[in-house]
Amino acid sequence: MLKPLGDRVIIERIEEEAKTASGIIVPESAKEKPQQGRVVAVGKGRIADNGSIIALDVKEEDKIVFQKYAGTELKHEGKDYLILREDDILAIIG
Amino acid sequence: MLKPLGDRVIIERIEEEAKTASGIIVPESAKEKPQQGRVVAVGKGRIADNGSIIALDVKEEDKIVFQKYAGTELKHEGKDYLILREDDILAIIG
Amino acid sequence: MLKPLGDRVIIERIEEEAKTASGIIVPESAKEKPQQGRVVAVGKGRIADNGSIIALDVKEEDKIVFQKYAGTELKHEGKDYLILREDDILAIIG
Amino acid sequence: MLKPLGDRVIIERIEEEAKTASGIIVPESAKEKPQQGRVVAVGKGRIADNGSIIALDVKEEDKIVFQKYAGTELKHEGKDYLILREDDILAIIG
Amino acid sequence: MLKPLGDRVIIERIEEEAKTASGIIVPESAKEKPQQGRVVAVGKGRIADNGSIIALDVKEEDKIVFQKYAGTELKHEGKDYLILREDDILAIIG
Amino acid sequence: MLKPLGDRVIIERIEEEAKTASGIIVPESAKEKPQQGRVVAVGKGRIADNGSIIALDVKEEDKIVFQKYAGTELKHEGKDYLILREDDILAIIG
Amino acid sequence: MLKPLGDRVIIERIEEEAKTASGIIVPESAKEKPQQGRVVAVGKGRIADNGSIIALDVKEEDKIVFQKYAGTELKHEGKDYLILREDDILAIIG
Repeated sequence: MLKPLGDRVIIERIEEEAKTASGIIVPESAKEKPQQGRVVAVGKGRIADNGSIIALDVKEEDKIVFQKYAGTELKHEGKDYLILREDDILAIIG
Repeated sequence: MLKPLGDRVIIERIEEEAKTASGIIVPESAKEKPQQGRVVAVGKGRIADNGSIIALDVKEEDKIVFQKYAGTELKHEGKDYLILREDDILAIIG
Repeated sequence: MLKPLGDRVIIERIEEEAKTASGIIVPESAKEKPQQGRVVAVGKGRIADNGSIIALDVKEEDKIVFQKYAGTELKHEGKDYLILREDDILAIIG
Repeated sequence: MLKPLGDRVIIERIEEEAKTASGIIVPESAKEKPQQGRVVAVGKGRIADNGSIIALDVKEEDKIVFQKYAGTELKHEGKDYLILREDDILAIIG
Repeated sequence: MLKPLGDRVIIERIEEEAKTASGIIVPESAKEKPQQGRVVAVGKGRIADNGSIIALDVKEEDKIVFQKYAGTELKHEGKDYLILREDDILAIIG
Repeated sequence: MLKPLGDRVIIERIEEEAKTASGIIVPESAKEKPQQGRVVAVGKGRIADNGSIIALDVKEEDKIVFQKYAGTELKHEGKDYLILREDDILAIIG
Repeated sequence: MLKPLGDRVIIERIEEEAKTASGIIVPESAKEKPQQGRVVAVGKGRIADNGSIIALDVKEEDKIVFQKYAGTELKHEGKDYLILREDDILAIIG
């Protein structure tokens, strides 16, 4: 199990085919194309200036849209993940 | 449905024809031309340093003027949207 | 009607002729020449770190001097306006 | 009358001759030569993060030394002024 | 013994072979490959703006994933260590 | 008299000869050589975010070591001074 | 005596030979090699945003590891010192 730190979130990318099926198509001409993913783990939150913890808005299993080049890739037990900061997540697909 | 995070706002662009009809014309010579849009979803707000949430000033259905090159484009269920931060919105058309 | 957001202010430029008549002349040699305008709409204010709102110091009808290249131009119902942040306003002409 | 906003200060430059007479001579070799001026109007102060106002330390009629290239020039009712932020003022000549 | 200061953490790298055995494989194509390590010492925490101390989330013996080029290497009593800031640690391997 | 504003300090340089005599010699090979001076006037202090004033740690007559290229030179009543921010002062020579 | 200001610390470098003897060897290939020193004087601390003083974590006589190119060199009464900010100190050698 991977537990992200702070305001980080671990996601699995959702493949292009699945993405089209679920109704999100990134326009060809967009300069920075967002991508879809599913949240698999979230950090405990951002630490405010006064030391209190601000919990994240996303939770496990949320489907999200994120900035294309954000985050760091890693492979764990044979699967590919991406570690993002929550601020790189644009929207939750409800 | 797309739910933007934090201080982000999802808008639909208002086409150039509609824009002219509604009375806003961007001058030819402007270096950074603002554009019009209609708000379709808003995040729950910006998180202050003390952890409290500062709600956004725009709400769904507001017609707005925004900075031309701001935001990230995406297509959802066949429609084109733009995800902006509220700070990229210049004014509400009342 | 255009309602600026946050600490933004909408102004009408005051023409060069009017400017000279009212007694402000921008010196030829100045590197960044300020310009005059009249405030037509003000945002509700800047949001402080604790979430409180800090009202603006300028109000509608104030005549102001602002930094020359500041702001974004737009045309609304046939008239030209400029949207500035209050910090780009140097002084009020009393 | 010109009323500067926030932490801004309007000054009149003191001419080089007057400057020498009052005893301040900027050394030839200094990279950034400060200059002298007399304060003619002050803003109400800088707004702190909590929204309170921090009054300025300079007041009308103070003779000051300021950073040479700071500020914005303007002419009002035939006279030349300079609008500075208080932080560009180095010292008061007592 | 080495005691890191503030929000710093001292780790031992986990070798590539061990890394593969434990199930984390960094993909070949990743631009910034994270690496694994084991925490050997932690600072007392980050100092908040109000002077209080915010303890770190990692503790001795945690297995972690960190940004590849982060930190400073040093050798102590014949062993190689890496000193990181906690913010360079992406996740704890649970 | 010159009264520095805020966290500024006015000093007189101590000549190289005097410097050697007092026991401080700047090594030839140092990239940024500090220099010695004597404090002649201090500002009332830095203003904290909450508007309170944080008095300076140096006082008149202190002998100090400061960063070589810091500050602004000026001549007052025939004497050369340097106006520094307190943060450019490295240490007090006790 | 030299009294550093604020969050500054004065150290004596520990020579390479001594360094090896005490068990710290900086690897040849490290891009930024940390170095060892002994603290000879510490400032009273960093001033927090609310004006309170945050005392330093290092004290006189501590042996420390610091970033190689940090700080400013000076010679006092014939000895070479280095003035660092505490943030340039990586760890205390216990």
